Amino acid sequence: MKDLTEIRKEIDEIDRKLLELFEYRMKLSLNVAEYKKKEDLPVYDPEREKEKLKKLRDMVKIHENADAVSDLFTQIMLLSRRAQYNALMVFDDFGFEAVENFGANIATKIAYYGEIGSYTEQAMLEYFKGQGTGIAMKTFEEVMMSLKNGQADYGVLPIENSSTGTLSDIFDLLAEYDNYIIGEHVVTVDHNLWGLPGADISKVKRVYSHPQALLQCSDFLKKHPYIEQIEGGSTASCARRILQENDLSQAAIASKRAGEAYGLELLQTSIHNEEHNRTRFIIISNKRRYLSQANRISICFVLPHRSGALYHILSHFIHNNVNLTRIESRPTKGKAFSYRFFVDFEGSLNNAQIKNALYSIKQEALELKILGSYIPI
Amino acid sequence: MKDLTEIRKEIDEIDRKLLELFEYRMKLSLNVAEYKKKEDLPVYDPEREKEKLKKLRDMVKIHENADAVSDLFTQIMLLSRRAQYNALMVFDDFGFEAVENFGANIATKIAYYGEIGSYTEQAMLEYFKGQGTGIAMKTFEEVMMSLKNGQADYGVLPIENSSTGTLSDIFDLLAEYDNYIIGEHVVTVDHNLWGLPGADISKVKRVYSHPQALLQCSDFLKKHPYIEQIEGGSTASCARRILQENDLSQAAIASKRAGEAYGLELLQTSIHNEEHNRTRFIIISNKRRYLSQANRISICFVLPHRSGALYHILSHFIHNNVNLTRIESRPTKGKAFSYRFFVDFEGSLNNAQIKNALYSIKQEALELKILGSYIPI
Repeated sequence: MKDLTEIRKEIDEIDRKLLELFEYRMKLSLNVAEYKKKEDLPVYDPEREKEKLKKLRDMVKIHENADAVSDLFTQIMLLSRRAQYNALMVFDDFGFEAVENFGANIATKIAYYGEIGSYTEQAMLEYFKGQGTGIAMKTFEEVMMSLKNGQADYGVLPIENSSTGTLSDIFDLLAEYDNYIIGEHVVTVDHNLWGLPGADISKVKRVYSHPQALLQCSDFLKKHPYIEQIEGGSTASCARRILQENDLSQAAIASKRAGEAYGLELLQTSIHNEEHNRTRFIIISNKRRYLSQANRISICFVLPHRSGALYHILSHFIHNNVNLTRIESRPTKGKAFSYRFFVDFEGSLNNAQIKNALYSIKQEALELKILGSYIPI
Repeated sequence: MKDLTEIRKEIDEIDRKLLELFEYRMKLSLNVAEYKKKEDLPVYDPEREKEKLKKLRDMVKIHENADAVSDLFTQIMLLSRRAQYNALMVFDDFGFEAVENFGANIATKIAYYGEIGSYTEQAMLEYFKGQGTGIAMKTFEEVMMSLKNGQADYGVLPIENSSTGTLSDIFDLLAEYDNYIIGEHVVTVDHNLWGLPGADISKVKRVYSHPQALLQCSDFLKKHPYIEQIEGGSTASCARRILQENDLSQAAIASKRAGEAYGLELLQTSIHNEEHNRTRFIIISNKRRYLSQANRISICFVLPHRSGALYHILSHFIHNNVNLTRIESRPTKGKAFSYRFFVDFEGSLNNAQIKNALYSIKQEALELKILGSYIPI
């Protein structure tokens, strides 16, 4: 058996030759790019690449190497394609425009999910600094629709830690509607005990709240075992009920905003357990705009259900040194054997490497949509 | 300018040489594997690979090629490593054992999230065919705990389309606890109108249900505008309230199981809108077992937040022709700059290629956990 140093020396020598051949191949592929530019031919020719791989597999001497050879040359052709995209200076900004700020004034209409006093309304008030007029919507889709039909200028939706819907539903809707994420906002869930004006905590017999809010206040409720816990709808609707039922022995667990919106009296502040429950919201618009300082991009693309499809698309991020911060796959509705991927990554839509990566993905995925660019929280 | 056919001929010639060198390199790397086996050295030596890449980058003639050369040789070393893993026949089954079935009998205790009459209880009854004794739990974590401390043999949790929690929370818990997915079950949400025995739909004045259930029955409720809609907690708790408040003018929208569990009278069947709302559940156990026919595997692994980390891990799936069916990233709690990935893929834990892929991922990821193997629905 050869000794390790000896084998490694041989490998180093082979690598030197591989490197040399590869660099010469890259030079030739830039010649191809020039030619294709002149003749207006597309860089990506999947049929030719498939044929080429088949021929190379047929040439292997050791059968066990066939898969590795496919993988190697898939990678080589990909590297050559990326060099061609770069050389041809093909970019795509998908029609997005940078702005300095998203102004809101008294005439700005902002659709939000939920009702007055909900954490989503609170997110809206905080993000737009109290400017604009809120419009309460019963479903995520109604918020999307209101932007489409011009009823609202902006929309606010919860996307994480919400008890009334899942992030994924909203991402499916974003893929479907021509609305774009322009901002993020986080609200720290702060539960308080609210009663009618004149109510006294020692006389409260029943407390209403959302099941999750009751759980999140379990330490407080254990100390008040004489108070009956009743599960209600949203925390805001429970606050509203206290006002409507006009009974001094009833209380609700709800946010500051909800208690104040319904003119209730604060019986005890911050009664939730230690954990910090935060809910993340997105701000959406139907215009392709982003803040010039935005440094996060969300996209989605559809890929066939084939081993390797995602792997090859990801290579475009790698090459451009793009860091992914989230990836999630969802089966595409009504399309068997394909998946939609939601990917967030760092960077600006204005950056040349990012525009090149997006162009490349657009060429090779079944569908690509830019969901928006924003400052993450 | 050279003509396309001519350039392609040159490229074909280079590829022939690249292929030959690559096959020779693969042969040498198998010699390395033999040597490493004899000396009991690890296949993966990240430091040596890093050094090697640096040297190769320094050798490029055209500066623009440096990134592509890194990518190419990262791939070549990966292919060589995979061949070494295969040659050394290194596998890892992570201590999982195949069984013919998961028997349940009167003594089997099954923890489920929610209360009697919930859709999760229904999923439990359907999956275990009415065998075993259900134990209602208030939180997902209590279900996890009950398996850990031996209070229950199995657990049932909703993981999709649930209005009371998100899939992601449960996956975080699965990563944390030593519990494993052994099965999936789907329940089609079927909303019905329930009243007290002797109630009459024409005399119902108020209907209680979960906010989402009220929305899902909006068509029916529009036809009965005289019925006031009141948001409550879970559909099962609303059914319970009808029994407790003993008022013939009150009704609840709830499942068949919930109405029957509380001895209510069915006033109208299947009142939900057209859409088919389905909720997916998982069955969990604290034993590393799977049904021998199981053909889906769920895993999670932690990667550093570095461009390319996911890309290189995915290559192990590609090489083994493993089809991914889901991928989702989650920030790791308390660990900055790293991510946990949840990946589902097709195949059996008993398959050699899969065991090899899992072994390779275990070598190269910061952490790897097999979440379970089951028959997907």
